[in-house]
Order: sequence, then C-alpha cells, then structure tokens
Amino acid sequence: MRPFKGPNFSLILFFLIVHVFVLLPANGFHPLDPLTPSELNQVQTLIKKSHKDVTFHYVGLDEPDKPKVLSWLSRSQPPNFFQHRIAFAVVRTNSQTHEIKIDLSSNSILSDKVYDGDGYPMLNNEEQTAAGELPLKYPPFIASIEKRGLNLSEVLCEVFTIGWYGEKNTKRAVAVMCYYIDGTVNFYMRPIDGIMATVDLDKMKIIQYRDRLMIPVPKADGTDYRESKQDTHFDTRIKSMTISQPNGPSFTIDGSNVRWEDWVLHLSFDMRAGLIISLASIYDPEKNEYRRVMYRGFISELFVPYMDLTEEWYYRTFFDAGEYGLGLCAVPLVPLRDCPENAVSMDGYFISQDGAPGYIPNVFCIFERRAGDVMWRHTELGIPGQTVTEVRPETTLVVRMVSTVGNYDYIVDWEFKQTGIIKVTVGMTGLLEVRGSVYTHKDQIQEEVYGTILAENTIGAHHDHFLIFSLDLDVDGDANSFIKSNLKTSRVNGNISPRKSYWRTKVGNYVGYRLVPGSVARTLLSDDDYAQIRGAFTKYNVWVTLYNKTEKWAGGLYADQSRGDDNLATWSLRNRDIENKDIVLWYTVGFHHVPCQEDFPVMPMLTESFELRPTNFFEHNPRLIER
Amino acid sequence: MRPFKGPNFSLILFFLIVHVFVLLPANGFHPLDPLTPSELNQVQTLIKKSHKDVTFHYVGLDEPDKPKVLSWLSRSQPPNFFQHRIAFAVVRTNSQTHEIKIDLSSNSILSDKVYDGDGYPMLNNEEQTAAGELPLKYPPFIASIEKRGLNLSEVLCEVFTIGWYGEKNTKRAVAVMCYYIDGTVNFYMRPIDGIMATVDLDKMKIIQYRDRLMIPVPKADGTDYRESKQDTHFDTRIKSMTISQPNGPSFTIDGSNVRWEDWVLHLSFDMRAGLIISLASIYDPEKNEYRRVMYRGFISELFVPYMDLTEEWYYRTFFDAGEYGLGLCAVPLVPLRDCPENAVSMDGYFISQDGAPGYIPNVFCIFERRAGDVMWRHTELGIPGQTVTEVRPETTLVVRMVSTVGNYDYIVDWEFKQTGIIKVTVGMTGLLEVRGSVYTHKDQIQEEVYGTILAENTIGAHHDHFLIFSLDLDVDGDANSFIKSNLKTSRVNGNISPRKSYWRTKVGNYVGYRLVPGSVARTLLSDDDYAQIRGAFTKYNVWVTLYNKTEKWAGGLYADQSRGDDNLATWSLRNRDIENKDIVLWYTVGFHHVPCQEDFPVMPMLTESFELRPTNFFEHNPRLIER
Repeated sequence: MRPFKGPNFSLILFFLIVHVFVLLPANGFHPLDPLTPSELNQVQTLIKKSHKDVTFHYVGLDEPDKPKVLSWLSRSQPPNFFQHRIAFAVVRTNSQTHEIKIDLSSNSILSDKVYDGDGYPMLNNEEQTAAGELPLKYPPFIASIEKRGLNLSEVLCEVFTIGWYGEKNTKRAVAVMCYYIDGTVNFYMRPIDGIMATVDLDKMKIIQYRDRLMIPVPKADGTDYRESKQDTHFDTRIKSMTISQPNGPSFTIDGSNVRWEDWVLHLSFDMRAGLIISLASIYDPEKNEYRRVMYRGFISELFVPYMDLTEEWYYRTFFDAGEYGLGLCAVPLVPLRDCPENAVSMDGYFISQDGAPGYIPNVFCIFERRAGDVMWRHTELGIPGQTVTEVRPETTLVVRMVSTVGNYDYIVDWEFKQTGIIKVTVGMTGLLEVRGSVYTHKDQIQEEVYGTILAENTIGAHHDHFLIFSLDLDVDGDANSFIKSNLKTSRVNGNISPRKSYWRTKVGNYVGYRLVPGSVARTLLSDDDYAQIRGAFTKYNVWVTLYNKTEKWAGGLYADQSRGDDNLATWSLRNRDIENKDIVLWYTVGFHHVPCQEDFPVMPMLTESFELRPTNFFEHNPRLIER
Repeated sequence: MRPFKGPNFSLILFFLIVHVFVLLPANGFHPLDPLTPSELNQVQTLIKKSHKDVTFHYVGLDEPDKPKVLSWLSRSQPPNFFQHRIAFAVVRTNSQTHEIKIDLSSNSILSDKVYDGDGYPMLNNEEQTAAGELPLKYPPFIASIEKRGLNLSEVLCEVFTIGWYGEKNTKRAVAVMCYYIDGTVNFYMRPIDGIMATVDLDKMKIIQYRDRLMIPVPKADGTDYRESKQDTHFDTRIKSMTISQPNGPSFTIDGSNVRWEDWVLHLSFDMRAGLIISLASIYDPEKNEYRRVMYRGFISELFVPYMDLTEEWYYRTFFDAGEYGLGLCAVPLVPLRDCPENAVSMDGYFISQDGAPGYIPNVFCIFERRAGDVMWRHTELGIPGQTVTEVRPETTLVVRMVSTVGNYDYIVDWEFKQTGIIKVTVGMTGLLEVRGSVYTHKDQIQEEVYGTILAENTIGAHHDHFLIFSLDLDVDGDANSFIKSNLKTSRVNGNISPRKSYWRTKVGNYVGYRLVPGSVARTLLSDDDYAQIRGAFTKYNVWVTLYNKTEKWAGGLYADQSRGDDNLATWSLRNRDIENKDIVLWYTVGFHHVPCQEDFPVMPMLTESFELRPTNFFEHNPRLIER
C-alpha cells in the first residue's frame, strides 16, 4: 500500500557500521533476535540461487522451539552464539507460493515446499507501487480521467486487497483506486470514486476495469494537514516544556534486551507483526528470582471491515497485518514528536521484493514516562496527633511503534509498570478512507450513504478496527490455566442478614495475571458473512488456545483472500485441553468507527487500552520502596 | 471519618493574606465562586445568632439560577461584585435538621426550614472523632479489649455509616469499629473484628454494643507502607527526571477562572462534591467565538457497597459524597508527588462542626501534562518522490483532586485537550477494608469468607465503587438532546452486494459531544435490596434528566440512611420531556473490586476513565496548527 521506503543497500552498510553495537550484543545473538541485514542477505542469496524468477513476501526468524530458548536462557553462561539460527521465507515464483526454511548457521536450505492452500502471502511494497502505476498508462483509465476534465499528472493510485466473497477460484489480484492530488498532500480526501481497476499481481496487469459513474472529486480546500499550509492567525502558544534526565535513562539495552527496574524483556522487529515483546520477566525481591510473565506478545492481526456496499467499497475487509504487514508499514518515529526527548530508539530491517534488506530507522522508541501519575498513595488522618502521607509517583517504561497502513496510523505502546502491570495502549489517528459523493450538505442526503458527510462531496465510511493481541503468558512457567471470574448475584435467604443480595466469585488465590479489558467491541457482521468467516476471531474478545508454535496469525498465515480455514476460530475448534497447559491468551481491542467532522482532514487520536495485572502473583504490593 | 484537619482560625487569616489574589480576582466575585472564609464566618455568625446549640454539617454556595449566571457572563463588563451571593447551610439543632439560606449581601437569613423527611445530613469531622473515642471509655469495650489481651492505648476506633435496612424509625446513628495500631500506621489492616458499637450521634453515646466473637487481630508485620519502615535491600533506582517550563505555564488563573489554549473554565471547591468544573467553553476559531460545552461537571455520589453478610459488615453500603463529603475528605496534594513539578495549586475551605472555616491547602493542582502522547499524526509515503510526516505531540491541562475517604484514596483528574476533548480519569488507591479471620492460609478456608485472604487472618472483602458524574452539558446553549447511537447489523438482501451483512447507524451530523465510556460496571445487587433502592443510579451507567437546580445529588441530599425517595432514579420517574431541553447527563464509573494480595498493605492504583468528545461540533479537526 505504499512504495518501498528504505534506503538502498549502500546506505544499509553505512548504518551497519554505526549500529554495530546493536547488532552484536555483548552476549552474541539472543535466540529470538530478529534477522540481521547480513542474515537477510544470506537468505536472499540462497533463495535466488535455487529460484530464478522469485519475489519475496516475507522473511523473518523461524524461532527456536520454546524449550530450546528456555534452556539457552537458563544457562548461567550462554554460548556466545546461538547455534540454531533459522530463517523462514515466503516467496512467489511461477505463480506459486513457496515456504522456505534456511539454516543460517550451515548456510543451506532446510526445506522448500509449495503452499497450495487458499490465500496469498503479504504484498510487498514494490508490487503495490507497480500495480498503482498501471492505470496511468491504461487507455480506458486515461479516457475516464479526461472525461472528468482532470489532469492525469495529478492522479495517484493505491492498491487495496479485495478479500474473498465465496469465489471458488481466485487470482492473486488487488483493486486499484485512484485519487486526485492537485493542491494537497491529502489525496485520500480526494477519491476519484466510481472507477475501479483490478490488477493481477502475478501478471502485473489490469484484468478488469470499470468506470461505473461520475462523482465529483471532493475539492482540495481544507484537506491539507501540513502546518505550512494553515493560516496561522493565532498567537497563543504552549510555552516550552522539557523533560530531562541528566544522568540518562534508568534502563539499559544490551542488544535487543531491555532491563528496567525489576523488568527484563526482549524486543524484536518482524515485518509482519511489527513489534514483538518476548520473555518478559520480573524480579521478585521476596523470592530473589526473576519470574516469568510473558513468553511473547504481539499484534497477530488487524482486521478492518468497511460497511459500505457500493461496488468500489464492499470488498474492503482488510487484514492489515497479514496483507500489508504491520512491520513493513512501520514508520521512522520522529524525535521529540512521536516520542519525548528522553526516548532512545531501535531500528528494524525487512526485505524488499528482490530480497534485499530494507531499513527503518527509529522503528521503536523506548522511554521512561513520568506523566504526573501516582503509583499508589495514602493520607492517614485517623491517628490522633499524627498525619501520615505516603505518595509514590509513577514512572513507567514505554516501548512504542507506529504503523501507517496507507491512510491509518496506529500507535502501539507496551507499557511496563513498577508494580508488575503490563499496559497496552492502541491509538488510532491518520486519515479516513472517504468516498466521493454528489452531496455537498447532509440535508440533501436521500439514500443510504454508509457513512457521515464530512465535507462537500465527502463521505467518511463506517468501519471497524479489530486488533488482536497474541499474549503467550507463561506465568511462573509454561503450565497455566485460564479462569473466568464470574461475579454472580446471590439472593440472601432467611434471616441470616438484613441484606437481600450480594455478589460472589470463586477466583481464589491462584498465582496469576489478570486481564483487565478496556471498552470492548465485537464484530457486528453475520457469522456466515465471508469477511466474518475470515475474521472470525472478532466473534469474542477473549480466546484461549493451547500453545502451538505455528498458530501465530489469528487471520491465517495467508490472510490475503483467505477462506477462514487456518485461523484462530478453526484452531479453537480442535478443542484441545487448556487446563494446566502451555496456553495462549488472545485479546481483541475493537473500535466501531462512525466518522465525524473532527476526523477531517486528519483524525484526533482515539485510544483504547487493556492491562495485564499481577493478581495474587506477588505476596503483597511489590513496590513499597521508592526507587 | 477523620478528625478535623484544618489549621485554626488564626492560621486561616495568615493564609488569607498570602492568597489574597486568589480570593479577590480582578473582576471581583464570579457568581459560582465558592464561599470565602469571611463569607463562611458570616454564615456561622448569623446561624449561631438564631440557634443556640447547633452543629454544622454543610455550608456552600447556593448558586444563582442559570439564566442569571449566563446573563452576568454575557456582559462585556460584568459588575465588580456579583449581587446575589447566597449561602446554603445544613445544620442540626435539637435533633432536627435545618436548611438555612443566607443572603450574604444583606447579611440576613432568607429562610430557615426544618427538614422532616428521611435521611440525615453529612457527618462532620468532629462528631466522627468524638464517636470514635466513646468505646475507649466504655467499660464493656474495655473488658473486651482486656479479654483479648490487647493494650487499650493502642486501640483506635473509626466511624462507619450504617445504611438503611427497612427500619421504620431510625436514629442518627453510626457503627464504630476498632483497630489495633500497635507497631504500624496501617491500622485498617488490624481490625479487632467481632466487636461493634453503635453510637447515637445526636446524644453522642453508645446505644448498642456487641462482642460477638473472638477473632485474631492480624499481625502488624508487613502492614506498614511507609518508606522508612521498609528494608531497603535494593540499590537500583530511577534516575532523576525533571519536567521544566522555564517560561511558566501556558495557562492563566484569574480568581477561580482558568484559561488555557482554547479553553476557559471555572473551578470551585465544595465540601460535599469536592472539585466542581463549571462553565467550560472552547474557542472556535472558525466562528471566532467561545462556544459553551459544559455548564457544570462534578462527582455527585460515590456508592461503595460491600458484599460481606457478617454482622459487623453487612451494613457497609457507603455513600461517600453524601455521608462523608468528597470535599471534606480532600487532602492537601503533596508537591512533586501527587502532582508534577510544573503544577500550581488552589486551596479549599470548608466548615467545622461549630461553623468555623477550615482550610485545605493545595486541594487542587493544575498542570500541563506532556506524557509523550501524540495528538494526531500521519506519515504519507504514497506520493512518489515525497515523504510527508506531520506529528503533533499532545499537551493537556489537568485539574486534580484527591479525596481520602477513610481508607480509600480517590484521585480524580479532569483533563482538557487541545482538540476539545474532556477526559475524566478516576484512580483508586489507598487501603482496603479488611476483616479479621481465623484463617492463616487459603487452604484452610471451609466456609464463605466474602473476600480474598490477603495475609494471615486478613480477608479483603469484596465490594464495589460507583462514582456517578453529573455532567450538565450545554453544547452551544441550554437546549440539548441526547441521542443513543445504536449500531445495528443489517442483512444484505438480494444481489445488491456480495456482502451478507454490514452495520448501520442513524446518528447523522448533529452538533454535539459524544460520551466515550470506559469499561462499564453496573450494580449486581437485587433491585429490591435496601442499599440498591438507595443507590439505584447504579442500575444503568447512563441517565439523562431534565435540568433542575435542586437535583444535584444522585443518592439524595440526605444520603445517610436515605430511603431512595430523593435520588436520580426517582427524579427520572417524573418522565419529563428531555428533547431539545436543558438536560443533564449522568455517567457512572464502576469498579467491582475482588481484592488481591498485591492490594496489601496498600493498593497499586487502579484507573478508569471516560471521554466527552466533540463530534460534529467543529467543522473539522480544530487543531491543525501547532501552538
């Protein structure tokens, strides 16, 4: 959905030199470290040797089995180099998808198998750019543009995955929709609606084209969000405010390992998932040991179905992680703006269409957050002659990534607290997908428009966002159980109390972590709807499955045009025992988005969060001491 | 529930001198300014003149009618002194409750009427202290303490309101429960359970006493939360981190009026409600005018029912605002701890039992919050040869108060955002109410204990917290309507689309503010339960009523032992027209609290929030410009 953004390879070499300390941590590779640029090059070279015409769609670490990782970690002096570095690649050649595993240590291909199931791999940036350029040279499209009196040189086209609607045979195809950029950078607000091209990505040609109807292109006025394009008729300003840590941050980063307060955790970047938090453990001063909390946490899928039935819109049921890649869409964070002045950053590497490594500087930022919050407090005025006031201000550790999937910007914060809480916050901002319309004012609307009129000729379409987090909690070890705490009203019978009712629960004192959900939103699509079959994880906000290394992607490994045969809902049907087992918790953060005028031309942040909270995990509040 | 904490009157005079600029703003009184110490003195003098034996329970501003306030505000040069300063007082004399209105301008009593309905006024601090001291001189209690081998000089008693359980006739009585403080300041963790005294507050004597059973007093070990009492066997510490605003804050405070960015608002302190936000308006640059958003917002009631049926516990169904006073329980905020270094503070005044003004320094703090959050952002990589990245970091204005109602500390933040959003966050911390128990380990428990075992002999009782906010939104004026946006699944019929379903809504583009709820929790008590009849507002999270100046307290003006005849649920039965009228929105933030070990001996903060978000209020995102 956007062109290759990384610098070319020579630039990568330059950064390799600068960032060498990051790539080669003191202890050598951590078993979960992401692939380095040189490892990515190794993968490219090997695959290109065995396949002539090949396009790359995903390359990432094929992580070692959990017992191996844990045994590696448990050694007091882990070996300098982890012996089992394996890469997993998904490539296309001869219109077929190949899954290739490569042993990086022995520099050899371990396996190469054709995937012949349904669905297609992630799109790479270059094929999106190429597909987006096709209409500009396609005579019927040029004629459509001329017919509308528009200037072709101001037209820009974007690629949209098309979902699956019951077709028996599918091609690896995308929809291409075009925009008029003339006088704005906010082309998303200027759709040339009513025209749609379908492109076969393997053949890289237009296989279907329809100019269905003429709709006015919304005007450019008021769409540009750049500061330089605004009238600045205000003189009040926020006075300068700075955060300083003269002695540096309180965390240390060794390779991809972060150590802060009682927490240790590992960060890695994946071109599909984006930020992956692994091996988060917390030191328990009572037990004098690090206790395992989360083996891995990441966004497994991001399902965005639109609610517009028109021909150019109905198919928009995007799987942003599986189709576009949350890592591939991650953007360099802007110092002092995306992250505060006390932040440090880490970089990420992905692969381009030809397998060459691409580079995203500042893909994560890590900072200590002191927002003016309080960790705990109490004022005691009940003791005669004595006032006790104890207040502990709160500092937290934030790891942040921003993924801009075309129009939308998702900001994801993993926040670690001194009291053992993990808080995850998702923010949504960026641009809406809007539809052109003949209407210039809401009072004119006589038919269903599937959205809100935001400006003249501009409808912001109704849609949802469902972000599902895969949370492999391993509290004090692999064997965990999930307990749903039902609070139930009990009637009081007889004369045992003047009360008539109370509530009870049977949670008990199990050592655990508690999911504290935010405001929950679930799917409103029918069970039998195609998009819902694919995104069936949205039926419930919470799922629990047995851990299975291959069950990573809640919308399926091949999410593009998937048919729902390899997703969380189908895995769950296997009905495996999940008591006292290595289990994974899945939690969906959902938003139903009814656009409003304030979302135009760029949306104020909307956030949602949830917490994983130690509950009878510690013997008592673990932070009585100020540190 | 705690002794009078203010300094004596001479100290108030001292602060009067220091804070004179706060008390006498440039424009004289604002019609909604809280009563000043000299006005409180005036009230005291007048009432003491007309009543001999009188105790004071509430004195506050009897605010002028809304049209008067608005007309005063609309004058370009409002008169230097608002002419209609009226005080409202609730006092007790001869075992009767009097409601007295005083015209402060003419220094006369306007009305003095006896309230002869059900329920009693707020408790004052002094009577709580006096009641708490009664057992210590009461021979049967002294005998109970001796029987347990405890030292009377280490015993401390606290006062608990007793609710209403269908009694036809009630006295103004409270329960008194005692604690053993020996070796800790955290006496709440050391209940001397099984003993309860009932005190008649009017007669100030014990009218009932029961030593029902002997339960071990939980030990002091591990209960003290003071830093000085901890073993400090850690050497890691958060490195210093400071926020600085070298040119001062970006807001101005004139009297009780705060001006920040496009917002203007008025703050006042009330001994029952605590913090009241009034007349919040936002400047709309398009319209070049201030637009009204909220006439008034405050916490109307805080209902805390416990779920323990034992004799010493069943009655605990507290109305913290109406019984104890959120303002009366407000505590001085600790600089650099309760609020960041860039905060400024305001003070509050209340009255003591004899009507003399008491003083709470730093009762509110006001600060700009720059937490590292983003207001909006977008990275545009879709335009060939161009990268657009615009990121607006977010600064907000926070007004904070902490109310410590005995054991619990509630932290309330009203946060105003540059984009027009009002966000309210409630944090809960402090100490649990725990019950003594014979059990030292969870495995011993054979009966229902109505809570969680937190430590040896210590049960943290199940309970709820329901904070109801009264939100008198007057969006662009008094006449408002409430629209519930129902998103409904529609089946797609026929061949109009390959889709089978989508959702729709009928909100439209009404100029408005949207309530964005947090995680919601409602009552689990039965409708017919006495506490539920009183706290019936917890049946729904959202209510809308016609504005009525007297309908302020969702649990009734006389909440103590109220019977549910004057509360939000009964007002709502009047079934008044609420379309295109001056209406009030009521929203309840609820928590079901199942205590856990981490809550012992002091609870890590648990927060919940909601937003009021401009929705089709502005023509577009109001903050494209960095200021």
